[in-house]
Amino acid sequence: MGGVTLMICQTCRRVAGGPPETEEPRPGARLLGRLEAACLPDTVTIRPVACLSACTRGCTIALSGGPKRWSYIYGDLDPDRHVEAILEGAARYAASEDGRVPWRERPEIFRKQSIARLPPQD
Amino acid sequence: MGGVTLMICQTCRRVAGGPPETEEPRPGARLLGRLEAACLPDTVTIRPVACLSACTRGCTIALSGGPKRWSYIYGDLDPDRHVEAILEGAARYAASEDGRVPWRERPEIFRKQSIARLPPQD
Repeated sequence: MGGVTLMICQTCRRVAGGPPETEEPRPGARLLGRLEAACLPDTVTIRPVACLSACTRGCTIALSGGPKRWSYIYGDLDPDRHVEAILEGAARYAASEDGRVPWRERPEIFRKQSIARLPPQD
Repeated sequence: MGGVTLMICQTCRRVAGGPPETEEPRPGARLLGRLEAACLPDTVTIRPVACLSACTRGCTIALSGGPKRWSYIYGDLDPDRHVEAILEGAARYAASEDGRVPWRERPEIFRKQSIARLPPQD
């Protein structure tokens, strides 16, 4: 089914869609650090990325996985509260054929905090 | 620079992010029809797609173009008012190397109604 990339926006200054923070490291960088320190399936690669242009919805992440999978963008994430759910959602995404995980198998943040998705390029 | 795909969500029931409409054809289908009837560069392919999961922001569209371009998702579009601007924005996107059109060269709807973007898969 091919490898999956979990992208973490490094520009995000918001936590859970709240007001922008000014201190460093930014919330997006804190989220990256916590995900990199956690256990992910070998098929998932973490990639820090520049602004995903969904700035009012920070922290934001995206999942993509080759030409046969839908891509998903999620927002309003919190580096302190959502690491476990992101890991669970990324693992389920990586285990899927086309990226579309059945609704009931998605963590709550993937059901309620989706910003958008894109179809496979194929 | 490779071909570009302009995706039009066919599930969208809203116009310019307004309340959901119930009549058929849906706003997303009307937008598709108007874009298909218009002139686009040969390098741009129009593709009707299922729900982009940005339903409160309908009508929605997305632009992607191979492994070297950023992908963009736009919303709050109106089939009656935004066809020309979508065509202009898609042509500029297709003429770009990596999908990132300079800010001043983007039509207003691409500056103000962006929902999110995704980095190139490369």
